[in-house]
Amino acid sequence: MRMLDIILKKRDGGELTREEINFFIREYVEGRIPDYQASALLMAIYFQGMTGPETADLTLAMAYSGVTVDLSSVPGVKVDKHSTGGVGDTTTLVVAPLVAACGVPVAKMSGRGLGHTGGTIDKLESIPGFNPFQSVRDFIRIVKEVGVAVVGQTENLVPADKKLYALRDVTGTVEHKSLIASSVMSKKIAAGADAIVLDVKTGNGAFMRSVEDAFELAREMVSVGTHVGRRVAAVISDMNQPLGMAIGNALEVREAIEILRGERAGALKEVSLLLGAYMLYAAGRCSTVEQGREMVEEALDTGRGAQKLKEMIRAEGGDERVVDDTSLLPVADEVIAIKAQQGGYISRMDAYSIGQAARLLGTGRNTKEDKIDHRVGIVLHRRVGEKVEKGETLAEFYVTQKHNLDGAIDIFNKGVDIDKQPPLPKPLVYGVVTPEGIERW
Amino acid sequence: MRMLDIILKKRDGGELTREEINFFIREYVEGRIPDYQASALLMAIYFQGMTGPETADLTLAMAYSGVTVDLSSVPGVKVDKHSTGGVGDTTTLVVAPLVAACGVPVAKMSGRGLGHTGGTIDKLESIPGFNPFQSVRDFIRIVKEVGVAVVGQTENLVPADKKLYALRDVTGTVEHKSLIASSVMSKKIAAGADAIVLDVKTGNGAFMRSVEDAFELAREMVSVGTHVGRRVAAVISDMNQPLGMAIGNALEVREAIEILRGERAGALKEVSLLLGAYMLYAAGRCSTVEQGREMVEEALDTGRGAQKLKEMIRAEGGDERVVDDTSLLPVADEVIAIKAQQGGYISRMDAYSIGQAARLLGTGRNTKEDKIDHRVGIVLHRRVGEKVEKGETLAEFYVTQKHNLDGAIDIFNKGVDIDKQPPLPKPLVYGVVTPEGIERW
Repeated sequence: MRMLDIILKKRDGGELTREEINFFIREYVEGRIPDYQASALLMAIYFQGMTGPETADLTLAMAYSGVTVDLSSVPGVKVDKHSTGGVGDTTTLVVAPLVAACGVPVAKMSGRGLGHTGGTIDKLESIPGFNPFQSVRDFIRIVKEVGVAVVGQTENLVPADKKLYALRDVTGTVEHKSLIASSVMSKKIAAGADAIVLDVKTGNGAFMRSVEDAFELAREMVSVGTHVGRRVAAVISDMNQPLGMAIGNALEVREAIEILRGERAGALKEVSLLLGAYMLYAAGRCSTVEQGREMVEEALDTGRGAQKLKEMIRAEGGDERVVDDTSLLPVADEVIAIKAQQGGYISRMDAYSIGQAARLLGTGRNTKEDKIDHRVGIVLHRRVGEKVEKGETLAEFYVTQKHNLDGAIDIFNKGVDIDKQPPLPKPLVYGVVTPEGIERW
Repeated sequence: MRMLDIILKKRDGGELTREEINFFIREYVEGRIPDYQASALLMAIYFQGMTGPETADLTLAMAYSGVTVDLSSVPGVKVDKHSTGGVGDTTTLVVAPLVAACGVPVAKMSGRGLGHTGGTIDKLESIPGFNPFQSVRDFIRIVKEVGVAVVGQTENLVPADKKLYALRDVTGTVEHKSLIASSVMSKKIAAGADAIVLDVKTGNGAFMRSVEDAFELAREMVSVGTHVGRRVAAVISDMNQPLGMAIGNALEVREAIEILRGERAGALKEVSLLLGAYMLYAAGRCSTVEQGREMVEEALDTGRGAQKLKEMIRAEGGDERVVDDTSLLPVADEVIAIKAQQGGYISRMDAYSIGQAARLLGTGRNTKEDKIDHRVGIVLHRRVGEKVEKGETLAEFYVTQKHNLDGAIDIFNKGVDIDKQPPLPKPLVYGVVTPEGIERW
């Protein structure tokens, strides 16, 4: 078997066999296929696509390219969740403790973020003392003892994805549905949970700009997961404006805690509760999604979710007092208010632009080696559809250095439109994809 | 400027600027852009194509990436030729001496072949003593003194193409018109000739399978050449069956010599004379192509072409006696006759299959490091359209080892069809592309 023939086959629109896909992944991970051939194949896949069987084969080949986590010693149906990534998108910190508080073990391995903000792991690291890099043994132990663990991806989990993702990132081959699906699902499969709930974002702040693309990606991921015997559901949610009000690392942890303490409502809470309901349902903890919804709401209202978060923080070495006292989180002292330049209705708060503005303040990474500044970020005071007077505060920038500040403000302002008329309301959730089919809301 | 942005722009169908193309070539040659980004861009170009200005910019950026040859010290209009490559395609050895014998200096740098047979340089090396690797100074001196030099491409000519071609070869990005055009034309431009005649092959033994693709490639190359002030014409000729009767290195030299000695007619001679006519015309040596045709025919009939070949062989260190006595060429002793398995009319002699069969005998290379066996190859006894009796010899295989012989015979036989009815005749030449336009014959 020759890699060149595999490239040519895909380039010319052929369907790769399982043997060809296994060969590619095995030899690439072993370093016997060079990056330049892998990137040529990835670009050919970008243009020619992959069939369902090809995507499933690629996912499995990747999932079993390294260590896999065996959660069978944890009683019950274990559940995991994944978001395709957005701005102000910190549902995990809300929903994982809630679901655990309802008696379903949540076992989530999470990567570092390469984007406008860090990933969940980076956000958790803003909690003093928190160490997300647990051994697989401790990961399983914490799931058993606490009911929930969100940890950094273990070193040798899906090395094929690690290597391929790094390559895709620098070769313009990230944004392809089958490649995204196989990347996400290979990690979920290797991380061992029985049920997986996906939050597929759509909008200008997401990989999937169009709603149709998001449904298609969701369908691919649900199909792959089902193919390998996992219970999978995907929620398609909006990412045209940031989901939460905070964009940043410590700032997002603070917002998640406030939600768990019952002090905050809004889109982030809504989507988190919905994901939680599907997680309970997928895990078989309830017989309808509506029941699941009631259960997570109760866990929130009674404070059992906040309590669970505390337990997880303590189990992973962090200072759990942050849950009661968010002033223990490292947040920048200097706060700059961004004022509305005119009065009217906010018709656009572009998630992409606001993510870029936050990144300029230091919330994210450009390269793996970059350091994240946990303290900085943006807190929105308004959302799309709300009325604002000229001079009112639209957002606050939390800053530690100012050399990119003007640029960040400029990008932020370009991402916000204020009109005389209120905009037509947009849905927060577009629908759900399950093995049974596609449900559009 | 970031290479990733250039990849994304092309992937999404954008037109690269001259600055972006220059950046890519300069940084890639300098080793500051890695192969895996270059191959991703090449695959994106494969799918999205390049505009005329992009192709011209790429060609020039490549042409000036290394040494360029200054032929201005040679009096007159210097002419070069290039074939996009085919099977049994040794026109250079026939036409270069003929054109030189008509008083037009022929200055050709040629690469080694990576394919079913060697390139012109490999063929010339089958002549005892012949050393095609002349310095640029000696190249120019031989053109001045003899009127014709065919030499190996000098080490640092178009390093960008050398590096890119090696990458394209292993990443499935060879077969793209704009990339082929820029690769060919960058070398022609760097090699210094004022006029360039291209032989664009079409058919199953050529890069360009379809006639339309060949015209399109020809149009791109003529356009690029004209853009940089060269006089360019392209002949589109058939490569559904081998052009000459010989496929191999020494065997092809023998056939070319026999043509120059006036002992052989046929397709190879026809196409060579036509190319010669266009070379004289492009160089301004005659006022019509028909006149050019008469001039090269006369050079052949009077033996001045054969004489010129002798002079060139001597000037490059070879034993010029081969022109009078082809038995001095190294040809395998063992000859195996391939017989017709049935009687009838030959309806197909697939150039690609016959090329592959010859390669199995050792005529070509799979990797740059492979050694070519100059002695081996195939000599056809019949062409498409000819009648053959069952048991008559279709071809002779010249062999030095037999471990691939059965495979070669098998591939050869699968490439030949014999029917009861004579096939419809196919044109040998489909037309010509000049700066004035496309002429279909």
